[in-house]
Amino acid sequence: MYAITIPEPGGPDALVWAEVPDPVPGEGEVLVEVVASAVNRADVLQRQGFYDPPPGSSPYPGLECAGRVSALGPGVSGWSVGDEVCALLAGGGYAEKVAVPAGQLLPAPRGVDLATAAGLPEVTATVWSNVFMVSHLRPGETLLVHGGASGIGTMAIQLAKAVGARVAVTAGGADRLARCAELGADILIDYHEQDFVEEIRKATDGAGADVILDIVGAKYLDRNVRSLAVNGRIAVIGLQGGVKGELNLGALLNKRGAVTATSLRARPLTEKAAIVAAVREHVWPLIEGGDIRPIVDRSLPMEQAAEAHRALEAGGHVGKLLLLTPMAV
Amino acid sequence: MYAITIPEPGGPDALVWAEVPDPVPGEGEVLVEVVASAVNRADVLQRQGFYDPPPGSSPYPGLECAGRVSALGPGVSGWSVGDEVCALLAGGGYAEKVAVPAGQLLPAPRGVDLATAAGLPEVTATVWSNVFMVSHLRPGETLLVHGGASGIGTMAIQLAKAVGARVAVTAGGADRLARCAELGADILIDYHEQDFVEEIRKATDGAGADVILDIVGAKYLDRNVRSLAVNGRIAVIGLQGGVKGELNLGALLNKRGAVTATSLRARPLTEKAAIVAAVREHVWPLIEGGDIRPIVDRSLPMEQAAEAHRALEAGGHVGKLLLLTPMAV
Repeated sequence: MYAITIPEPGGPDALVWAEVPDPVPGEGEVLVEVVASAVNRADVLQRQGFYDPPPGSSPYPGLECAGRVSALGPGVSGWSVGDEVCALLAGGGYAEKVAVPAGQLLPAPRGVDLATAAGLPEVTATVWSNVFMVSHLRPGETLLVHGGASGIGTMAIQLAKAVGARVAVTAGGADRLARCAELGADILIDYHEQDFVEEIRKATDGAGADVILDIVGAKYLDRNVRSLAVNGRIAVIGLQGGVKGELNLGALLNKRGAVTATSLRARPLTEKAAIVAAVREHVWPLIEGGDIRPIVDRSLPMEQAAEAHRALEAGGHVGKLLLLTPMAV
Repeated sequence: MYAITIPEPGGPDALVWAEVPDPVPGEGEVLVEVVASAVNRADVLQRQGFYDPPPGSSPYPGLECAGRVSALGPGVSGWSVGDEVCALLAGGGYAEKVAVPAGQLLPAPRGVDLATAAGLPEVTATVWSNVFMVSHLRPGETLLVHGGASGIGTMAIQLAKAVGARVAVTAGGADRLARCAELGADILIDYHEQDFVEEIRKATDGAGADVILDIVGAKYLDRNVRSLAVNGRIAVIGLQGGVKGELNLGALLNKRGAVTATSLRARPLTEKAAIVAAVREHVWPLIEGGDIRPIVDRSLPMEQAAEAHRALEAGGHVGKLLLLTPMAV
């Protein structure tokens, strides 16, 4: 098969479409013929040599895919050759085939184009596990999403609205905020021009946000604590603004607040399977019912992964960037 | 009645035993004739002028007491005049009488001297709410307790052991560590002489502590993160080592960890009542069955509250310092 390889870490052109050996599904794994994968920020870090795949996983980038089941490894039940699926991966999505632990497979949702389904596993699993399983967002509460126009952001807005929460977003520029508003965001904050602490304060009559989904990390830590409501929860899922930040524990204690930080990729299989099962139970019906739409910025041939990485790094996109294998094109 | 008043904030001698008006129980409140109160670190901060009582609560210090019900306010059911009780208070325990919201009352546990019961509400509510309700310590997990010989520490050791957890403690000096060992602590760390990060690492084969109950705050924040296991939870309940500390979000994210910070005093009545109800359900049977003992360092007449504060600040005590009203003496 062909896959995107990284012979030498570096810029976008470090991504090379090359012939490699086919993967073989192991015990409890399913082989998927990939129709599409999608780009995540972790792929950029892996390309740059800063984020090695977990031991035992594929060396190629790609944390999610969609396609068709082409073979079953030993001990797999519940899936058949030919099933249209999408999957959460520890790596290897940028390829024509990938072996996937069966617990990380989802049926391609009815009503969604198969390639488009490739952009669903990471955002649904990340948002559901953090905003709902860890931070327990409840109806009537306010969620603040940083990067509201990103793949994660566009899913977080829709899921939070679907459960009856109020949603605030930060994004850069009126166009991107308008897209967030179309998806249901109630409070729109342009981080180029506004102070989100002050805007959240005004929009909540001083109460603050009950849950904050954060991709920035250190640079926003103090401001996130200041934006938090009593009993509020900050879920850090990215560190684009640095790793080490000052935490005002006195302010956090006065608010009886929580700061959590998680990632999906390094979790053991049992935890990933539990999250995927919860996504299938709670999120899939909302997608199949049309309450939630996958938001795709653009689709590119997988050989042009470098171009997709440049677009992600430039930051002007709204929603997911998909990579299509020759099978899809 | 008489109460300990604070005419001018300051050192221990700022505490003055003086005649004051009797409290009157309001809607949903019970009047308790106090036999004993107990000293908490928050009382020292209040004496120094750094921790005002929440609006509407008694101006006198004292976050817990034991005594007898002497009158019922309107709308109270389930309690009778003469009942022997102890109570979690927002203030006012250093007095001959105190009005208490009924949801914060507990029956004095069978088998425990009434005055001794005065030292139970704060430690049981703090440990149960943080270690179990917030941080979900499970059997087989490791709890690290900073200040293992304190009132909070001696209760945390016993409760964690009672549910089948492994317990590590830090304390200053061999004598205090020996008392922790008597209560069941498995891993003893002398913070004067040992690095707790290294000792926890060695004692857990590198895994780290699943839950850390911390009274130090900023000064220990980075070391607590380094001592944490994957999926670990840090519960900050005191800030004796400062308010603002550096949080390594990258390390926290790699461990999928959580930092929470809470206090009891400022919580709304409904949250306090829920915690007290959980303590009555889960902790009281362990006390009445003899699995858990109240640990009292010494008892002093309430007029000598200054002496008790000096003892708490000197830090040589093990367990609680009780203050007895003239009724008890």
